[in-house]
Amino acid sequence: MVAAELKVVKRQRFESVFDLIVDDLVNFMRENGMPQDAVEWYRRSLEYNTPGGKLNRGLSVVDTAEILLCTNDQGDKMRELSDEEYNDAAILGWCVELLQAYFLVADDMMDASITRRGHPCWYRLSGVGNIAINDSFMLDGAIYFLLKKYFRTKPFYVHLLELFHDTTFQTELGQLIDLITAPEDAVDLNKFSLDKHHLIVVYKTAFYSFYLPVALAMAMCGIKDESAYKYALDILIPLGEYFQVQDDYLDAYVGTDIRDNKCSWNINVALANSTQEQRKVLDENYGQKDDTCEARVKDVFNASNVNIQGKFAAYEKESYDRIHGLINALPENAGLKRAVFVSFFEKVYKRTK
Amino acid sequence: MVAAELKVVKRQRFESVFDLIVDDLVNFMRENGMPQDAVEWYRRSLEYNTPGGKLNRGLSVVDTAEILLCTNDQGDKMRELSDEEYNDAAILGWCVELLQAYFLVADDMMDASITRRGHPCWYRLSGVGNIAINDSFMLDGAIYFLLKKYFRTKPFYVHLLELFHDTTFQTELGQLIDLITAPEDAVDLNKFSLDKHHLIVVYKTAFYSFYLPVALAMAMCGIKDESAYKYALDILIPLGEYFQVQDDYLDAYVGTDIRDNKCSWNINVALANSTQEQRKVLDENYGQKDDTCEARVKDVFNASNVNIQGKFAAYEKESYDRIHGLINALPENAGLKRAVFVSFFEKVYKRTK
Repeated sequence: MVAAELKVVKRQRFESVFDLIVDDLVNFMRENGMPQDAVEWYRRSLEYNTPGGKLNRGLSVVDTAEILLCTNDQGDKMRELSDEEYNDAAILGWCVELLQAYFLVADDMMDASITRRGHPCWYRLSGVGNIAINDSFMLDGAIYFLLKKYFRTKPFYVHLLELFHDTTFQTELGQLIDLITAPEDAVDLNKFSLDKHHLIVVYKTAFYSFYLPVALAMAMCGIKDESAYKYALDILIPLGEYFQVQDDYLDAYVGTDIRDNKCSWNINVALANSTQEQRKVLDENYGQKDDTCEARVKDVFNASNVNIQGKFAAYEKESYDRIHGLINALPENAGLKRAVFVSFFEKVYKRTK
Repeated sequence: MVAAELKVVKRQRFESVFDLIVDDLVNFMRENGMPQDAVEWYRRSLEYNTPGGKLNRGLSVVDTAEILLCTNDQGDKMRELSDEEYNDAAILGWCVELLQAYFLVADDMMDASITRRGHPCWYRLSGVGNIAINDSFMLDGAIYFLLKKYFRTKPFYVHLLELFHDTTFQTELGQLIDLITAPEDAVDLNKFSLDKHHLIVVYKTAFYSFYLPVALAMAMCGIKDESAYKYALDILIPLGEYFQVQDDYLDAYVGTDIRDNKCSWNINVALANSTQEQRKVLDENYGQKDDTCEARVKDVFNASNVNIQGKFAAYEKESYDRIHGLINALPENAGLKRAVFVSFFEKVYKRTK
């Protein structure tokens, strides 16, 4: 099979585990005498909100478990995951996707978004509305139901619970900073800074998207050494930050961050480098739903003293070298393997290379 | 001290523990470099949404721990809780109050409520709005932060986590049934039934308000025997159900359940006992924001064949005797004491007696 076919097969196998998870949750409700309409409501929410994305976070758990359990020190694959190992990793992967679903259903309400992944946001469906708040809670609730069902007797059960608790709280902190720093309806660029951008990106995205999937796989594979988790964190958080900066940077060409008053990397770099005159242009035009305003902001981004493009190229090179260095310096004696991070690293940097 | 003074002192001691909890959370944010405005936002949300109610749920944890640890088999108090025991019980009590705060902030948004405990609902404060969704998440997040900080090394840590996970999910299930059975804007009495009312009351209220505080205290006091938790459940769930039925019943005289299309005990008893003609009156007048409609519904409630008052008196007697019997039949050999339930029982039945 060529790489693209392999990717489809991998995804399909992973998706098939989602059906089992939905059955588990639906059966639990039935066994507890829940009315049919409530059972169907929950099934629909799970199916509408959880799959449908790129599933990178969930698949990362499986990929990491495979590297940790099935490759030798030279990085050669020695065996396949057993069915049980695969299922455990895939269930943890789906728990990460459920966590993301919980955040996204709520974020869409808080941002008054219209569509998500090409479909109307869940809260906008007929009859849903603010019930979506409780639906988001129940997407989160599914995680602990599944962890209890599948991992209760495992020695790493508490570790899994704490990883989810800690990461959930961190993501909520990042979301809070983002919400009060960059409300869509009240532009105040004095609230922005590269420091705040760093906090938002690390807390709101990097912990749950980069660190969590790897740490879950590590826990599942029996890694107990705290220093191994520290190494993973020290590599994956900067990698996650780079990923989001890249996302922010690319948005200047295709997205709506300028109109939406987002506390993005671009505006913060512009604020840090603008003349008083340029700053005035940014204050007056950022966060306005207007093409001319948007174009004026982009002019500042592209001015020679601001030069977002050049600044991004420099940031990318610096970050690439730094993370590359961290990966190469990783000791492999705590059960961790460089290949785990190389695989992430290549996926993230390949987006623009 | 007379009983009323003692109650005030107990409440004040319990409230003083909340200040410690807020400090813990605020310090955690500061240590992690969160911006000052985010720290102050969270502090304000914790203080606005968590205390201010009757604190019955939280105080129940302390009361139960005191009975379990400090009384002898004859029910005589032999000693006081140590400071450490008191703090542990009070922190668990505040975790129950945080869980309630999480639900109430969200419920108020879903019900479009105006006030809560005599103040504007949190989401209605200037600048809050839909950010309240994330704030509700962070009230829940505080629970697991606190459990980790204070109980991580205790043998009953996982038990505490599972009690919170299980109860949270049950409450969300109850809320889902309630939301889709009785939406405020679409009256359909065909969706109502005494069975659904039972499910809503048990899942949405009884688990977290009655079972959870006692089960947490039991876990903290070292009770491991599963049968003890089963006995507690078998008594506290019917007691919680009676409590809510009583609440529903009293609402007919003082509340807005009829106008708000609530799936309350009264309407379900009326539906189960009404003639075709009365049913038509209910269909046409229930859930309407109109005094005349409300009066017509009340007339059906009071009609001799429906007779809500008589039905409630009969239900109360039956439930009183049944739960009294369960408490008397409780074996005390699994570390559980009858006094735990007697105290609850008296509080609940004293409301109308």
